[in-house]
Amino acid sequence: MSIKKIGIGIVGLGTVGSGLIEIIQKNNNSYKSKYNLDFSINGISAKNKKKKRNINIKNYKWFNDPIKMTEFSDIDIIVELVGGSDGLALKLAEKSLINGKYFVTANKALIAKHGIKILDLSIKYNSKFSFEAAVGGGIPIIRLMQNSMIVGKIKSVYGILNGTCNYILTKMRENNLQFNNALKKAQQLGFAEANPEDDINGVDTAYKLAILSNLAFGITTKVSEIFTEGISKIEEIDIKMAEKLGYKIVLLGISNLKNNKVMQRVHPSLVSNNSMISKVNNELNTIIIDDEIADKIMVVGKGAGKKPTSASVMADILNINDENKKKFFVSKSKKANNLSSQDISKREGKFYIRMGVDDKPGVLADITLFFKKQKISIKSMFQLDDKVKNIVPLIFVTHKVTEKKISLVLKKMDALKKIKTKIVLLRIEEL
Amino acid sequence: MSIKKIGIGIVGLGTVGSGLIEIIQKNNNSYKSKYNLDFSINGISAKNKKKKRNINIKNYKWFNDPIKMTEFSDIDIIVELVGGSDGLALKLAEKSLINGKYFVTANKALIAKHGIKILDLSIKYNSKFSFEAAVGGGIPIIRLMQNSMIVGKIKSVYGILNGTCNYILTKMRENNLQFNNALKKAQQLGFAEANPEDDINGVDTAYKLAILSNLAFGITTKVSEIFTEGISKIEEIDIKMAEKLGYKIVLLGISNLKNNKVMQRVHPSLVSNNSMISKVNNELNTIIIDDEIADKIMVVGKGAGKKPTSASVMADILNINDENKKKFFVSKSKKANNLSSQDISKREGKFYIRMGVDDKPGVLADITLFFKKQKISIKSMFQLDDKVKNIVPLIFVTHKVTEKKISLVLKKMDALKKIKTKIVLLRIEEL
Repeated sequence: MSIKKIGIGIVGLGTVGSGLIEIIQKNNNSYKSKYNLDFSINGISAKNKKKKRNINIKNYKWFNDPIKMTEFSDIDIIVELVGGSDGLALKLAEKSLINGKYFVTANKALIAKHGIKILDLSIKYNSKFSFEAAVGGGIPIIRLMQNSMIVGKIKSVYGILNGTCNYILTKMRENNLQFNNALKKAQQLGFAEANPEDDINGVDTAYKLAILSNLAFGITTKVSEIFTEGISKIEEIDIKMAEKLGYKIVLLGISNLKNNKVMQRVHPSLVSNNSMISKVNNELNTIIIDDEIADKIMVVGKGAGKKPTSASVMADILNINDENKKKFFVSKSKKANNLSSQDISKREGKFYIRMGVDDKPGVLADITLFFKKQKISIKSMFQLDDKVKNIVPLIFVTHKVTEKKISLVLKKMDALKKIKTKIVLLRIEEL
Repeated sequence: MSIKKIGIGIVGLGTVGSGLIEIIQKNNNSYKSKYNLDFSINGISAKNKKKKRNINIKNYKWFNDPIKMTEFSDIDIIVELVGGSDGLALKLAEKSLINGKYFVTANKALIAKHGIKILDLSIKYNSKFSFEAAVGGGIPIIRLMQNSMIVGKIKSVYGILNGTCNYILTKMRENNLQFNNALKKAQQLGFAEANPEDDINGVDTAYKLAILSNLAFGITTKVSEIFTEGISKIEEIDIKMAEKLGYKIVLLGISNLKNNKVMQRVHPSLVSNNSMISKVNNELNTIIIDDEIADKIMVVGKGAGKKPTSASVMADILNINDENKKKFFVSKSKKANNLSSQDISKREGKFYIRMGVDDKPGVLADITLFFKKQKISIKSMFQLDDKVKNIVPLIFVTHKVTEKKISLVLKKMDALKKIKTKIVLLRIEEL
């Protein structure tokens, strides 16, 4: 077989971009002999040419205007690593596909928002695109869903999709750290960015969940419409109480199909200590796909980091000859099903509820009576000793109840004078 | 896009064959609208036409000679589900590829033994073959290794590859069953075959490991040359002692690369209670791939059963248009590397050693002294109370020592009169 020469253009030279260049430099000979593919980096571009980098940009052709790359005949693949759901990233996607280039991206915001538009363009111009690194870092989940989990009806897809949050929650648990200190540690070690807001508040997870939901169910969702709660409200006391009750707290993205409706949600969840998901620690991510025929498939791996993420981008590049990918990212115009979205209000499950109350006799009984009147059935309750300023923490675990019901009751509770703190509500997931 | 008609011929109508027919019947409309593929079963064949089946064979064209299917123009895909490394299975593979059919098989023995031969034929005749169901049942590990884990150098691939053994070991652990009773239970529930020899003695795991090693390292190994130990020597006492020491016993297949040599082995292994692998229970399987760039990727799913295995066969069928698969099953004639095999004697690790000794004072001290003289460093030792016929069990856990050393020492121990039972040696794996 003859060796095929392939030119790559890389836009964005941050962590993943420089990781990708290192992979290509180190492995190109091996790719040549194993796969008959000979890659060369025929164009690079970034916002700031003068920034200090650990790659020597003089070895490559520099494009001040990266869009020009999409018209350059020596470039077959455009790798977009600039981020952002619109602007340059979107323009690169469009121009690449229109000009017949293979568009590879690690950009979850772009794919979550404009995936269908990009798909339709790729069909129109008979070009293609891949986005393995957009979800799960080094975990090859996109290709697995596009090529393997295509046999039966998928019932649910869920998992730990954000390495920063998982690292913080692990450190809070293992080292008895408060949220802020665990976050600082994560930042020192490079597991959290200087501005970690989108990670902490769950938005990053929601982007990834929207992509997984599209692959699983063929639906398109605005990320802003996904129920999303972050982890900053979690306190040491919750971690400890969860442990005592046989649970670990993880940030989950969950999307599941029931009666032709898809419910998507992102929130901290109590999962059983006996579950495999509870063993997914630190910066690891996991995705579980529950298929009616293949049953549950779980994949675990590094959810972030230079090498794993660059490896996923490189896997896309090596799949340049794979022709049938786009079929499995379902277009709006050709929906195979008639699914609609389901609000979280229809969720039914157990809840963990924490509040601070006056340290006076009878308060526990009062709150319990209140729950009884509201027809919320309590499985267990705890009054803890570690009071602060005469406020003691009370913790309740409910039996199964709907979100609608619990949120109505919580509103009423907010008006009770005996409750001195904000009520913390966490969901228990039996997955 | 126009819908492509595809004819399927199925040879072998056991559990997986009938499961596959059910999947196609139930989902063909959905495949038509989702993937533009319209399947019809245009031929079936099995050893015994008259056997009672839950599918009505009159609905399909019956072939007394299944080889004739490979010459039938209305059949594009031959699905081989008869098993066996040679004979009909091999002949079907050869004739299918020579006649330009897509050959799909669930046959681990065939692929482990003749994979390279089949690959070379598929290259010569520009046809193709897939074998997703040959390893890991419903776990999409083959396609994952062929399409995704292709970026860096793989350092090791290992896992729990046999659902029968894992089910038996789980039941021994959870229900305090003896091996024979756990096996009976597994047979009653359909998790073990009437003749489970190849499962129990590790041979089934060795077949699967040989395939994974080929995909990971491009080497071909005779299954008979893989170091293979089964689980029948495991007793309740070992399960309990392992638990006490912080371990669970699982049957692992392990293949790893070190200094350009690949060591493959199948044996019961003590793995830490804190590891994710120790949570893979019952009929679940898991495969872990340790790649130098993507890091460790772990996949868990149902390792056997009608539906999961048929789903993997169907996933192969749905990938009929995927053209670049065969490149990643490395042919002998075009090796990308120069790897050789490494004997298990070079393994270095901790061992769990159990023996029965005379219930006399000083025996423990004698054995300990013996280990000392042989320069085997002991980490912990236990003399148990539950003696049978005046024989008490002694258990030793060693520090790291080579296989070569330990097997020499064990030979010497066999000659010691104080030791009244066969010595049970189990390996501790820190994965």
